[in-house]
Amino acid sequence: MAYLDDQFLLHSPTAIRLFHEVAKDQPILDYHCHLSPKEIATDHRWENLADLWLGGDHYKWRLLRANGIDEELITGNSSPREKFQAWAETVPFTLRNPIHHWTHLELRRYFGIETLLSPATADEIWEKANARLAEPDFSVRGILKKFDVRMVGTTDDPADPLDDHLAIAAEDFSTKVLPTFRPDKVFQVDRPDLFNAWLGKLEAISGISIHHFSDLLASLQKRHDAFHAAGGRLSDHGLDRCPALHCSDAEASLIFDKARSGRAVNAEEKEKFSFYLMVFFGQLDAARGWTKQLHLGPMRNTNSQMFGQLGADSGFDTIGDTQQGPALVTYLDALASGGTLPKVVLYNINPSDNYLFAALTGAFQDGTVPGKIQFGSGWWFLDQKNGMELQLDALSSTGLLSRFVGMLTDSRSFLSFPRHEYFRRILCNLIGTEADRGELPDDFEALAGLIRAVCFGNANHHFGLNL
Amino acid sequence: MAYLDDQFLLHSPTAIRLFHEVAKDQPILDYHCHLSPKEIATDHRWENLADLWLGGDHYKWRLLRANGIDEELITGNSSPREKFQAWAETVPFTLRNPIHHWTHLELRRYFGIETLLSPATADEIWEKANARLAEPDFSVRGILKKFDVRMVGTTDDPADPLDDHLAIAAEDFSTKVLPTFRPDKVFQVDRPDLFNAWLGKLEAISGISIHHFSDLLASLQKRHDAFHAAGGRLSDHGLDRCPALHCSDAEASLIFDKARSGRAVNAEEKEKFSFYLMVFFGQLDAARGWTKQLHLGPMRNTNSQMFGQLGADSGFDTIGDTQQGPALVTYLDALASGGTLPKVVLYNINPSDNYLFAALTGAFQDGTVPGKIQFGSGWWFLDQKNGMELQLDALSSTGLLSRFVGMLTDSRSFLSFPRHEYFRRILCNLIGTEADRGELPDDFEALAGLIRAVCFGNANHHFGLNL
Amino acid sequence: MAYLDDQFLLHSPTAIRLFHEVAKDQPILDYHCHLSPKEIATDHRWENLADLWLGGDHYKWRLLRANGIDEELITGNSSPREKFQAWAETVPFTLRNPIHHWTHLELRRYFGIETLLSPATADEIWEKANARLAEPDFSVRGILKKFDVRMVGTTDDPADPLDDHLAIAAEDFSTKVLPTFRPDKVFQVDRPDLFNAWLGKLEAISGISIHHFSDLLASLQKRHDAFHAAGGRLSDHGLDRCPALHCSDAEASLIFDKARSGRAVNAEEKEKFSFYLMVFFGQLDAARGWTKQLHLGPMRNTNSQMFGQLGADSGFDTIGDTQQGPALVTYLDALASGGTLPKVVLYNINPSDNYLFAALTGAFQDGTVPGKIQFGSGWWFLDQKNGMELQLDALSSTGLLSRFVGMLTDSRSFLSFPRHEYFRRILCNLIGTEADRGELPDDFEALAGLIRAVCFGNANHHFGLNL
Repeated sequence: MAYLDDQFLLHSPTAIRLFHEVAKDQPILDYHCHLSPKEIATDHRWENLADLWLGGDHYKWRLLRANGIDEELITGNSSPREKFQAWAETVPFTLRNPIHHWTHLELRRYFGIETLLSPATADEIWEKANARLAEPDFSVRGILKKFDVRMVGTTDDPADPLDDHLAIAAEDFSTKVLPTFRPDKVFQVDRPDLFNAWLGKLEAISGISIHHFSDLLASLQKRHDAFHAAGGRLSDHGLDRCPALHCSDAEASLIFDKARSGRAVNAEEKEKFSFYLMVFFGQLDAARGWTKQLHLGPMRNTNSQMFGQLGADSGFDTIGDTQQGPALVTYLDALASGGTLPKVVLYNINPSDNYLFAALTGAFQDGTVPGKIQFGSGWWFLDQKNGMELQLDALSSTGLLSRFVGMLTDSRSFLSFPRHEYFRRILCNLIGTEADRGELPDDFEALAGLIRAVCFGNANHHFGLNL
Repeated sequence: MAYLDDQFLLHSPTAIRLFHEVAKDQPILDYHCHLSPKEIATDHRWENLADLWLGGDHYKWRLLRANGIDEELITGNSSPREKFQAWAETVPFTLRNPIHHWTHLELRRYFGIETLLSPATADEIWEKANARLAEPDFSVRGILKKFDVRMVGTTDDPADPLDDHLAIAAEDFSTKVLPTFRPDKVFQVDRPDLFNAWLGKLEAISGISIHHFSDLLASLQKRHDAFHAAGGRLSDHGLDRCPALHCSDAEASLIFDKARSGRAVNAEEKEKFSFYLMVFFGQLDAARGWTKQLHLGPMRNTNSQMFGQLGADSGFDTIGDTQQGPALVTYLDALASGGTLPKVVLYNINPSDNYLFAALTGAFQDGTVPGKIQFGSGWWFLDQKNGMELQLDALSSTGLLSRFVGMLTDSRSFLSFPRHEYFRRILCNLIGTEADRGELPDDFEALAGLIRAVCFGNANHHFGLNL
Repeated sequence: MAYLDDQFLLHSPTAIRLFHEVAKDQPILDYHCHLSPKEIATDHRWENLADLWLGGDHYKWRLLRANGIDEELITGNSSPREKFQAWAETVPFTLRNPIHHWTHLELRRYFGIETLLSPATADEIWEKANARLAEPDFSVRGILKKFDVRMVGTTDDPADPLDDHLAIAAEDFSTKVLPTFRPDKVFQVDRPDLFNAWLGKLEAISGISIHHFSDLLASLQKRHDAFHAAGGRLSDHGLDRCPALHCSDAEASLIFDKARSGRAVNAEEKEKFSFYLMVFFGQLDAARGWTKQLHLGPMRNTNSQMFGQLGADSGFDTIGDTQQGPALVTYLDALASGGTLPKVVLYNINPSDNYLFAALTGAFQDGTVPGKIQFGSGWWFLDQKNGMELQLDALSSTGLLSRFVGMLTDSRSFLSFPRHEYFRRILCNLIGTEADRGELPDDFEALAGLIRAVCFGNANHHFGLNL
């Protein structure tokens, strides 16, 4: 079978039918990503393939480094063409890595190029792709239309003004661009300099002077309201693990005062403060019918030298192995006990925790909403064939795949939309192959319904998007 | 291939032969379950399908909640027919969950119904199944005979009088119903109210007044003797992890005195007391030639609100991620060092621990009995196709599959016996497929011997049941 | 398909071609094992099959014990023929264990025997194999030539004189036998008796009197130099987890003084001392262009009684579940921050840590050498089909399989070389099957290049062996 052809990843007749007749033409709902709302607002264009492909993609940077490429050619001052050449030299060494699939799917789907990238083909691909980039429809908005992306959920700081989101909404663009409330910076009470600088921004945007802890809560609530008004229906938190130390109002207030006055708080105080706020954020989400995403478990900025040189999100984060279960139970139970458990999506970074997370969702379903607590799609290092299959198996074996809200890209790149195709092929293959083996009912319409729901319908309904 | 047909889960010619010529007709030996001995003694019958199917099955309750069904229709006061309707609405959403397989295998094997359950078929199935329930042979004992269940190992408190077991034994019924010694309640020294109430029961049943720690040990030993006399050959413990703090006689005695006098002991004292007793129980088992089962790792009653409302075993337990290895080594080593290591079956709740448990068995085999330390079959959330295959692979890769004591249901329902068929199909498929691929010898009789042993022979021999 | 035939483990046309046309005839580079350099120097021969097969193989011992065989017939005083009989009785019970594959591959590849071992064939195999053992070419060196083993990396104590390595090197034998620097014993500061006895040996071999900590460092460096001169290019450490407590020169010196004067140090001091030395060893390796191997995670000597009876490495070690991530990050980051991070190979004992280790390599790649930080091949309990496939999938999904240094036996037996064949079949099967499915490019020469690199070329180049 030819590489990446129509039957790519589809190993049975029903798998092929499910993908081509059902999944392929479902719209895309990319409810969690790190795309730039500004680039959507301004309908950004790219100068060349290196700019578009290599500019901010730390997945590729990691593989370049692993291939012995000098940092100068990765994040340094080399020319775009030189950086592209380094990538062209590396791609043939990426066999069996998902990057090999993604790279060539992207060349096909965006540029119509079926040639494999290598030093021998670098010139040809560079020129052909750059020519395509110059065509009028090759812009951010052109891409969103081409891939029928109905919604993009960006990731935003509560102190962000949301100008770009509001500008796009005012235009009634075919893709809804909705903000996600991600208040990571409010937890930095161990770094009063950063904490207070950020509070300054929050004061400015919320119009509330933050003297007391209650002011902080009021301003956060006001921003949550503003995000809601801008169409936001999801929040998100990136944590090594859930905070799990109960904290009274009085304690939280004292810890706030300490950090507000410039004194760093200790680890226990930080965890208590974080727990208090995480419960508060859960209450906000529950009250508004939002969905809370929890991304748990990475070890970040592991390489001090490179963190000093390049900062965060440069490819030096990795999978952690911290115990997750008891803390997550403590947090969800605190919300459930208070009657303020919102819809939740749990994402784990270590595949060893797949069953832990999948089964845990079942202990907090409360019968109010189908699939209220979700086990999220394979995240980050797990957003690939092996990772997706493991996630789908753990989810299916312990819960309701039919209620799954499905795929998201979590990407910083406008070239990542074919990953939805990738996920859909894998999903259709699991379902179709098992149907053809007699392990699922031979009822095409029932299977098609599951596929449609997981590709688009569930997320649309679950997040209340009404697309 | 049609759903659930004769070749269900069997993907090669030898797999099909092994199941149909060998595994299918092996008797069932369900050595660990939670069936009610009283219902066997009284030859219980059911009023309707909801009563039988939905009355106590927290697997189904979890999926109902995950499907957005109100608790009233799950554990509440809704009518049986209404509850059945909620289940009929949920079943079509359970595709790829083992419940979809089990549900329809149960309809086929118990009721002769091949229709898939859904709102459209609910009426028809309800009536047909209830009619079948009214037939004379559809009783607990009828089921046990139909499925050729030669032995059922119930799960019993040492303070239980075993009346039902003795009554059944007196009748010489075709299924042996044997008690399993599960002394969970003796560890409750952190809850002196519960502890002392339970000691009251133990005093009554054993006829020993429990003033001193030595009285407790004497009464436990007396009950162990009584279980043995009633045919018991297995003990069982459900623990988040093994206790691992060594404890002297004097310490154990002081801790006992404290709890006996109504004062709660602290966590360290509880662990020491538990360790002491776990070693004592190991000695009892070793002396009698019994097998000790250790079920390790769940987080129980995670949802306080629902625990308050429904109590334990209602679907709010989940998989834990506590470190298991060092504590388990400490415990088994204490027994081995004392020359009192009994036969043991280790069950893990988190599939991430499969290799940990599988390899650990190998470090305590002592050459006295084949398969002395066993890696138990996929437990609870892992008692499904994916979980079973992972367990069989870890066991096979590190130990002797040929000596495996095989499947048990761990079930509270008399409808669960087809899970033995399910396990056997999966086992035959692994063996047969590999044989047809040249990864196992092309020696049908040798493979058949393995299948027979794992389905029935090993457990019968290993537990000393002489069936 | 016949058991173990030419197409064994190869399930697609390209898989078959890749193995038979490419992988099969690649030389063997066994860069990490526990073979005896003395037996190579003296061209050792064996008296009988039991001597060769059962003498030191704790994998087999574990299965014998699991099969209920008395220790007398395993490590006791029974005759070789009796021990062989016990093994012949056990082998039929090892179906699906890798030992069944290895046993019969070894009988085929070394002895030309295609009969399966069982009690019925024990006599015939015993006689035929022993006759073969008597033939002139059946010696250590005959085996190394027959399997085209170009390099063997033994595992050696810094206090070892390396006489055998030097003697072999002087002969210009076709197999390079190179020492690996494994200084486990320098960490025994909690056992001053053992520590000081070992320092005595180190003083003797290095010619440096070790009074102060600086003397210890100087003598270790001198031995590192001597290993380098003897062709050594790798170091190795076996640890339950990386030490992770930073330690100053002054602290290390004080801890040394304490242990040197015969006082045991506490756990924190031991960890600090170990961390200091592990950084020092990293610096030595980096300066010389060596590769450091880290074998992390086992629980050793779990069974006190058997440890007392048989000592270490007798089959009572097992897989651990200690948290590995943060400590490993701390260690690698300390080296990277100092600019002294050598090439590293990380091996995990628990397959639950596969993705943890695989992803972690990516956070310390620095672009100086392709595949600088390696995720090592399935180790110990994981050195089998299931373990290898899981390792290859985690590596492929997160890094560059094309840069992988590949297989090693880690074995104590000269009969283990067919495990390279085993690994190669599994590797060719993964690659070939995916190519035939359209998941890898249909470019045989590109795939063949990957296979050649992983089988031999990468290790040869990466370790600087110039074979």
